[in-house]
Amino acid sequence: MSIIYAIDIAGTFAFAISGALVAMKKDFDVFGVIIIAFVTAVGGGMIRDVLINAHPINWIGDINYIWTILTAVGVTFLFRSKIAPLRKTMFLFDTIGISVFTLLGLQKGLSYELHPFVALVMGMVSAVFGGVIRDVLTRKVPLIFKKEIYASACLAGGVIYLILGNFNLNEDLRFILSAAAIIIIRTVVVKYELELPKIKKDILGK
Amino acid sequence: MSIIYAIDIAGTFAFAISGALVAMKKDFDVFGVIIIAFVTAVGGGMIRDVLINAHPINWIGDINYIWTILTAVGVTFLFRSKIAPLRKTMFLFDTIGISVFTLLGLQKGLSYELHPFVALVMGMVSAVFGGVIRDVLTRKVPLIFKKEIYASACLAGGVIYLILGNFNLNEDLRFILSAAAIIIIRTVVVKYELELPKIKKDILGK
Amino acid sequence: MSIIYAIDIAGTFAFAISGALVAMKKDFDVFGVIIIAFVTAVGGGMIRDVLINAHPINWIGDINYIWTILTAVGVTFLFRSKIAPLRKTMFLFDTIGISVFTLLGLQKGLSYELHPFVALVMGMVSAVFGGVIRDVLTRKVPLIFKKEIYASACLAGGVIYLILGNFNLNEDLRFILSAAAIIIIRTVVVKYELELPKIKKDILGK
Repeated sequence: MSIIYAIDIAGTFAFAISGALVAMKKDFDVFGVIIIAFVTAVGGGMIRDVLINAHPINWIGDINYIWTILTAVGVTFLFRSKIAPLRKTMFLFDTIGISVFTLLGLQKGLSYELHPFVALVMGMVSAVFGGVIRDVLTRKVPLIFKKEIYASACLAGGVIYLILGNFNLNEDLRFILSAAAIIIIRTVVVKYELELPKIKKDILGK
Repeated sequence: MSIIYAIDIAGTFAFAISGALVAMKKDFDVFGVIIIAFVTAVGGGMIRDVLINAHPINWIGDINYIWTILTAVGVTFLFRSKIAPLRKTMFLFDTIGISVFTLLGLQKGLSYELHPFVALVMGMVSAVFGGVIRDVLTRKVPLIFKKEIYASACLAGGVIYLILGNFNLNEDLRFILSAAAIIIIRTVVVKYELELPKIKKDILGK
Repeated sequence: MSIIYAIDIAGTFAFAISGALVAMKKDFDVFGVIIIAFVTAVGGGMIRDVLINAHPINWIGDINYIWTILTAVGVTFLFRSKIAPLRKTMFLFDTIGISVFTLLGLQKGLSYELHPFVALVMGMVSAVFGGVIRDVLTRKVPLIFKKEIYASACLAGGVIYLILGNFNLNEDLRFILSAAAIIIIRTVVVKYELELPKIKKDILGK
């Protein structure tokens, strides 16, 4: 479990940096940057825990999330000119983060004896809604609704995790295989610029 | 109770379609459309249940909501060019939906022994806040705050439901009379384009 | 305790007026004005109570909040042309309100045996997030993220409250000293137009 916890913290760190960078570009002050980093990093898990009544919720039950986020904001302030261009590294961290957030959320849902499909939704909520809150607070249309295949990768990985539950696999192996699937799918999709289908406006008549 | 459950599901279906249509007009991808349909349909009840600590919350406790929403999104994708123009039919479904959502929310609040006025607020939250979340996520000023008499119809129906509690009525009849009141008020208001009074900007001095 | 309760209600009243004024300027109807006044006044405490699982949450457990808000909206409608220019009076009420909200939130967090740092966050959530929800629903970038030192004053007052806990002070005195600190800091900051540092966009390379 401790390697998964380490990846969880690393994912939190990566999400906090991505939130801090968005807030800095929007000209927010120090406090605003911390808030945006915070909701980006723990917002998804917080919504999940409130919805499934898992108290204490993520960042209240484990103070390490707060320290991780404050450290990430500090690092972003100090090294912003160096971090911003590191798109590939950031993308890697971010992708590892969402894979772990998805599977941890799914596991938590299952441990609360939710219907597997609801648990799957909880996994996606964990991975995705931090970014949605970030975009609402910074007044962007949540990117994820428009062209990110992000959530679909999480969904696919979650389904794989559920399917693998039918085989006689070691739990760690099951987790790692599913996480790998998310990371590979997202990387391939972004590399080849794949998009989910959209319904054209003109079909809607107006 | 089963006829009320059927109407609840029909209302969920109608709300999901209305959310899906908004998201498609905004050029969202499949995933975005599902999310918007989802929050529109169950967002109000979800907020209500979190606020009154009613776990498992609506769509976690009853998987049928999720199937209903996914079906509604599928139907909207397949028949979008035919559904979009059906304004009157959609309006009817939507109005039946809010009447049922209002009264179910109010009933649930009373069953949790809330103050009747707080239960009334919960009824309105159930009916209205799905649309508010939809509008926030799609970056519209929530329509309901500006010119929809929507919420006022819910409020009136809820008050009628509470008042009817003082008479010796059959519970089903009480529910149906109150729902009819909401449907009639909203239809009359929309037909004659009534609006709640507003305070003009110039009165405010700037 | 009753003087603190009185100030809590006065703060709720002031927050509700500030919310109602924003909604009126945005041309919302009566219902929209009430909703915005409501979330501004009790939104922060509501989020706090949901996150720490304190049920019944603030305005469900005490109906006086609702009456206070409705009264505030009524007063704002009747005397809007007189209230709007009273910027100094409003500022005073508002500042007293946030100082009390911060400290009550912090106290509540401590009484739920949260880590002091998490309790501090809860104090700030109580004071600040009503305004954040108001700004999201009225489609403004939350002001607090950009140039209000508002939250920093709350933070400083909360830290002072925690530090004073190490001394042998009467609880009322501890509360009053911390509240005074918040009021003084915010007043000085606004008077001299101090701002938290920002990271310039051009440093970010784009």
